[in-house]
Amino acid sequence: MTKLNIGMVGYKFMGKAHSNAYRALPMFFPDRITPNMKVICGRNTAAVSAAAAQFGWAEHTSDWKALVSREDIDLIDINAPSNAHKEIAVAAAQAGKHFYCEKPLALSLQDSREMLEAAENAGVKHMVGFNYRFAPAVMLAKRLIDEGRLGDIYHFRAWFLQDWLVDPDFPLAWRLQKEIAGSGAHGDLGAHLIDMAYYLIGDITEVIGMSETFIKERPLPEETGGLSATSGNQAETGPVTVDDATLFLARFGNGALGSFEATRFATGHRSTNSFEINGSKGSVIFDFERMNELQVYFKDDKEDVQGFRRVLATDPAHAYSGVWWPAGHPIGYEHTFTHAFVEFLDAIEQDRQPVPNFNDGVKCQQVLEAVELSVQERKWIYVASL
Amino acid sequence: MTKLNIGMVGYKFMGKAHSNAYRALPMFFPDRITPNMKVICGRNTAAVSAAAAQFGWAEHTSDWKALVSREDIDLIDINAPSNAHKEIAVAAAQAGKHFYCEKPLALSLQDSREMLEAAENAGVKHMVGFNYRFAPAVMLAKRLIDEGRLGDIYHFRAWFLQDWLVDPDFPLAWRLQKEIAGSGAHGDLGAHLIDMAYYLIGDITEVIGMSETFIKERPLPEETGGLSATSGNQAETGPVTVDDATLFLARFGNGALGSFEATRFATGHRSTNSFEINGSKGSVIFDFERMNELQVYFKDDKEDVQGFRRVLATDPAHAYSGVWWPAGHPIGYEHTFTHAFVEFLDAIEQDRQPVPNFNDGVKCQQVLEAVELSVQERKWIYVASL
Amino acid sequence: MTKLNIGMVGYKFMGKAHSNAYRALPMFFPDRITPNMKVICGRNTAAVSAAAAQFGWAEHTSDWKALVSREDIDLIDINAPSNAHKEIAVAAAQAGKHFYCEKPLALSLQDSREMLEAAENAGVKHMVGFNYRFAPAVMLAKRLIDEGRLGDIYHFRAWFLQDWLVDPDFPLAWRLQKEIAGSGAHGDLGAHLIDMAYYLIGDITEVIGMSETFIKERPLPEETGGLSATSGNQAETGPVTVDDATLFLARFGNGALGSFEATRFATGHRSTNSFEINGSKGSVIFDFERMNELQVYFKDDKEDVQGFRRVLATDPAHAYSGVWWPAGHPIGYEHTFTHAFVEFLDAIEQDRQPVPNFNDGVKCQQVLEAVELSVQERKWIYVASL
Amino acid sequence: MTKLNIGMVGYKFMGKAHSNAYRALPMFFPDRITPNMKVICGRNTAAVSAAAAQFGWAEHTSDWKALVSREDIDLIDINAPSNAHKEIAVAAAQAGKHFYCEKPLALSLQDSREMLEAAENAGVKHMVGFNYRFAPAVMLAKRLIDEGRLGDIYHFRAWFLQDWLVDPDFPLAWRLQKEIAGSGAHGDLGAHLIDMAYYLIGDITEVIGMSETFIKERPLPEETGGLSATSGNQAETGPVTVDDATLFLARFGNGALGSFEATRFATGHRSTNSFEINGSKGSVIFDFERMNELQVYFKDDKEDVQGFRRVLATDPAHAYSGVWWPAGHPIGYEHTFTHAFVEFLDAIEQDRQPVPNFNDGVKCQQVLEAVELSVQERKWIYVASL
Repeated sequence: MTKLNIGMVGYKFMGKAHSNAYRALPMFFPDRITPNMKVICGRNTAAVSAAAAQFGWAEHTSDWKALVSREDIDLIDINAPSNAHKEIAVAAAQAGKHFYCEKPLALSLQDSREMLEAAENAGVKHMVGFNYRFAPAVMLAKRLIDEGRLGDIYHFRAWFLQDWLVDPDFPLAWRLQKEIAGSGAHGDLGAHLIDMAYYLIGDITEVIGMSETFIKERPLPEETGGLSATSGNQAETGPVTVDDATLFLARFGNGALGSFEATRFATGHRSTNSFEINGSKGSVIFDFERMNELQVYFKDDKEDVQGFRRVLATDPAHAYSGVWWPAGHPIGYEHTFTHAFVEFLDAIEQDRQPVPNFNDGVKCQQVLEAVELSVQERKWIYVASL
Repeated sequence: MTKLNIGMVGYKFMGKAHSNAYRALPMFFPDRITPNMKVICGRNTAAVSAAAAQFGWAEHTSDWKALVSREDIDLIDINAPSNAHKEIAVAAAQAGKHFYCEKPLALSLQDSREMLEAAENAGVKHMVGFNYRFAPAVMLAKRLIDEGRLGDIYHFRAWFLQDWLVDPDFPLAWRLQKEIAGSGAHGDLGAHLIDMAYYLIGDITEVIGMSETFIKERPLPEETGGLSATSGNQAETGPVTVDDATLFLARFGNGALGSFEATRFATGHRSTNSFEINGSKGSVIFDFERMNELQVYFKDDKEDVQGFRRVLATDPAHAYSGVWWPAGHPIGYEHTFTHAFVEFLDAIEQDRQPVPNFNDGVKCQQVLEAVELSVQERKWIYVASL
Repeated sequence: MTKLNIGMVGYKFMGKAHSNAYRALPMFFPDRITPNMKVICGRNTAAVSAAAAQFGWAEHTSDWKALVSREDIDLIDINAPSNAHKEIAVAAAQAGKHFYCEKPLALSLQDSREMLEAAENAGVKHMVGFNYRFAPAVMLAKRLIDEGRLGDIYHFRAWFLQDWLVDPDFPLAWRLQKEIAGSGAHGDLGAHLIDMAYYLIGDITEVIGMSETFIKERPLPEETGGLSATSGNQAETGPVTVDDATLFLARFGNGALGSFEATRFATGHRSTNSFEINGSKGSVIFDFERMNELQVYFKDDKEDVQGFRRVLATDPAHAYSGVWWPAGHPIGYEHTFTHAFVEFLDAIEQDRQPVPNFNDGVKCQQVLEAVELSVQERKWIYVASL
Repeated sequence: MTKLNIGMVGYKFMGKAHSNAYRALPMFFPDRITPNMKVICGRNTAAVSAAAAQFGWAEHTSDWKALVSREDIDLIDINAPSNAHKEIAVAAAQAGKHFYCEKPLALSLQDSREMLEAAENAGVKHMVGFNYRFAPAVMLAKRLIDEGRLGDIYHFRAWFLQDWLVDPDFPLAWRLQKEIAGSGAHGDLGAHLIDMAYYLIGDITEVIGMSETFIKERPLPEETGGLSATSGNQAETGPVTVDDATLFLARFGNGALGSFEATRFATGHRSTNSFEINGSKGSVIFDFERMNELQVYFKDDKEDVQGFRRVLATDPAHAYSGVWWPAGHPIGYEHTFTHAFVEFLDAIEQDRQPVPNFNDGVKCQQVLEAVELSVQERKWIYVASL
């Protein structure tokens, strides 16, 4: 197999990011299977038609069910709103298609488990869109941990800080509605932190959290995208049904302590997606706003020159080096998607599951739900109990 | 009154810091009451005698009870180990002396309340050693909040990260023994964060925490100071009875959410004492390792130049400017103590209680104890219930 | 015109960067003329054939003269080694093609002037590859200056620091040979700084410089690319005929003072391309390794909160916002090329010369050469005298 | 000898800094000779009397000649304005006193040489006030170079940026008058950079510079200190006779290239005193605004974790550690003076010349003057020719 025919459901922010990754892939990874941008799908025919032309898809459709059952489609890419994920994923699995699904997998742990089960029953490859794993600086952190260079891990602290909701006139976009988005900062931002924790540290055993919706009513939107919305009649408002911020404490299976914070009310932070890990031999600090950098500390450095190093993860020694630009030349947000798809293509070629796959997605969903339960019940929740 | 006679109990790390502040004060604040370094007190006569000579105290003694009752002493400065605070403070109050006490006030909330009561009954001035309040950059943060320039506060997150216990061979110093130190990272480091939260944001209403002692047995020390200890026979070990790390979540009375972490296991962090505050109009970030700087963000900055400003709090517009050095010239850790004593002297001159005083110390102790209870009982604790 | 047929000469590092930009452009700038990747050209047929497949060019050739005269080609993109620029550019002009040429335009000022003259005589559009102008953070700096928000400019200091030549075993690649590359750090890195100075501040009137080749002999390469080379028999060496580092001082026509440094011997700097500007009302600092950020200072900020702001130039208020990703999501090195080509396409559509064009390229070459002369003659050189 | 009687001439900014250092010294360095603050001297009797009381000097006088000849004085500390240095220093030498002189030594190279000669003839100890050498982070840089850990040095670049003259209404203080101050930014700020270069890298062989006075007329002051002045009648102005900014290029005896910039017109920089050194094995970066930190890079770090380390020079492995505060606790500007005086006391005790002494001061003056000549004559000047 040298070419993989793709059908993609969704065409907004994530649809654009995915399309761009598919376009870039054959040029920068010419030895991989070529993703063939065959069909893009969305409910609004005019909009999806425009997207097809703009993003470079051969065809477009508004019928995802028909798409899923087409014989000439190998992989379904699901980046529609979260409440649509499950139905599409299960149908794709039943049709024997591989699929890539944006996070969070579904609105509930139960749904995400059913999606995993469907995929496993069908024997297809499945991947979940935790793209931040694929920043080379994050991959360096992973390597340092895996090689034991940080020693035993004591602390993981992570925060994903945004500020787009601080303005009380920002309208009630779909991401603020529980029935569509599932949750707010927690599922949108916290999910990335939880996956990062799982990827880098391992299983979380118990959690306790705290949530808040600071602004409880917002103007109804006239029209709404994921991250933007045009405000209509300001007189009409509706209730925000998701969290503006969720924080939680966690214990990991390996004894490490975790601290997590996801908020859309951190004024001054456009998208600070950051973590720090402290181990017995060293530490690392990452911030996605400076995604090409990893701060690294080693306890066994010579005693007069100990300090956090600012490592630019663009050297030949780093992941995907040589593929992009010379050392010291930054890559951006979009490259994480290209790397993720390379992993999917490699997995297909090697006939193995890609990582992260739906098992990881379910893990994340389980923690998300454990945190929500801990908020409701105001007590520690064992993750394994869900 | 132009001179205040001081008797100081304690002569190690904090005794040195306090002595230095008393020495510097008349030179940099010549219009204030002069602190007269009269008597220094400690149990080990040889050691305290050497300290008297080194630090510049006129006399020394090993009898704190005699010291406290001397008529020529106006103020008792208590920086002995935490388990000795209460008895000295109560005796000083009963003798009608003003007193300054290092934090944490005592080993228990109950004790600290009795200390406050003794002070109030005696009508003396009392102050507690939350010196970090007195960094000019922190005072700037306070001013921004008080003047409403950050708006409504949504988030307070703070962490005090040290790494001196990562080495498993570090011996069992007194700070690792519950009966002397009261608690570990929580009472030592967390106390500063809690006071900062109270100072900047206000009352905490409820908390839930998590603690860990990562290394449970350590070699017995031959000799022990607060932050250092010489290891004796490595074969003999004893149990660490305090926490290596304590984290907690909090809700403030004004609706803000808080996240706190104090640890001595954050490899690479010698003494990162840091907080961030996000409000509806702006944010600030502080890190004591760069104590002359405050990062400040304003939401109403012109839209194309919004960003965190690195403000060097050494300008004429900042607290204590002109007293020290020209703009751009750093001051250090020790200056926070000088500023704290200036506040105490001003309060005496103006016949008011200094701030922070034992009310603040009790507030801090109450939160410390609420967190400890929440750790034990694994549930949220209302601070006011203690 | 909705489509522009492109013939590109060159297929290595820059060829890849340009190809990627052409591929991305229609997706992110769908309302612009579409660049049609028609023919790629290079001397090595096998290599250029592979590049055509990898980068997505419809055809390939090893005959640039034939390419230049093809009727179906609208624009010639020249990114072959510097010594080939002139002949191709002049031929393209004579054939009536628009052209885009990588910097430096040519090996001499005289050559670059002839290239400009050829372009002007032919009435074609011409652009020069100073891609760093097109980082949104740089464009913000430009806007601040143009709107007078930095006031009168006093200082411009800039440095482009790399370290790939510190290893004495790095072989004698073409970039180290004067007859191919023209000059070393000066023409390669310094040219970018000079253009940035011209773009942001204006004309340089006089200069004095200093150059050094720290390692004067290097192993002959077996095979050589621009930035890499495989070392052959280490016993054979050849002379490095270009500068490893060139620094110079400059006076600008508007009275500002300039300081420039370009070096390949700054250990630890992979590609620090940085400038700072100080004006009577404010200052800016830029570093390409953190290309999404601009540090901005305003003298009229409220007196207690003055400080350099770290502005992430990814907000809606910044250039090309909305085209790429949400606020706070970094873009990378490659995006500067896409933006540059958008400018070229806009200029063609609006029938004006793009900026920067060969006039800018000649300006840069003039300063480069004035500096070289100042180094040779050890005296200040008036730029206008060349 | 256990005590050294000091007579100090000067009582403003530097007088305060020196007094503070003398006060702190016996407490933090109790094993050293004690500096005894005996007499302070200044022209204005009322002001010097107040300073004596504030700073803690036993006596005061307005007659420096009498002071210099007193038998009970061992060391003369000269921090009066620069134009008074020579006469006092020569007299002190002739009276057989050791002396410490602020930089720059004198208004001319010739004068500084005569001062050195007088000191050598008298056989006294002499030291010059290059206090920045004594920041522990700078001392770490020195150690790394001396131990060969940075390898051969290729580049030294340094800049001392201030902004207190950007306001055109700032009056004509003595520091802006050539007959008193000798020069402007060059002698005040540049002198520190030149000394740092000499300390860390070695002799400078040739230089070429560029100077500017951006604002040529300023209001006459009513009263004037060194760094501040009260503006009188704004209608009256006088000419600024010193440089606002001076930049120069340099070659070192060891082959390194140097770049220097001193300016009082760098808006946003209160006192950025910074240097970077690149060697064949590593690099360091220092900025006095973060004076406790040194950025350190090693070329032989493991290839995937190469990067500049932020070393906090407050560890036991660093200079003067243990004397001040625990690791991670910042010291400030004033501590550099204490360290400098410790060096002077040690030199006296060990009967050797302190470092930096007047030989270093003359070296600095020679480069200062070579740069000035290069500015006047618009050509490269060999330092040894002066």
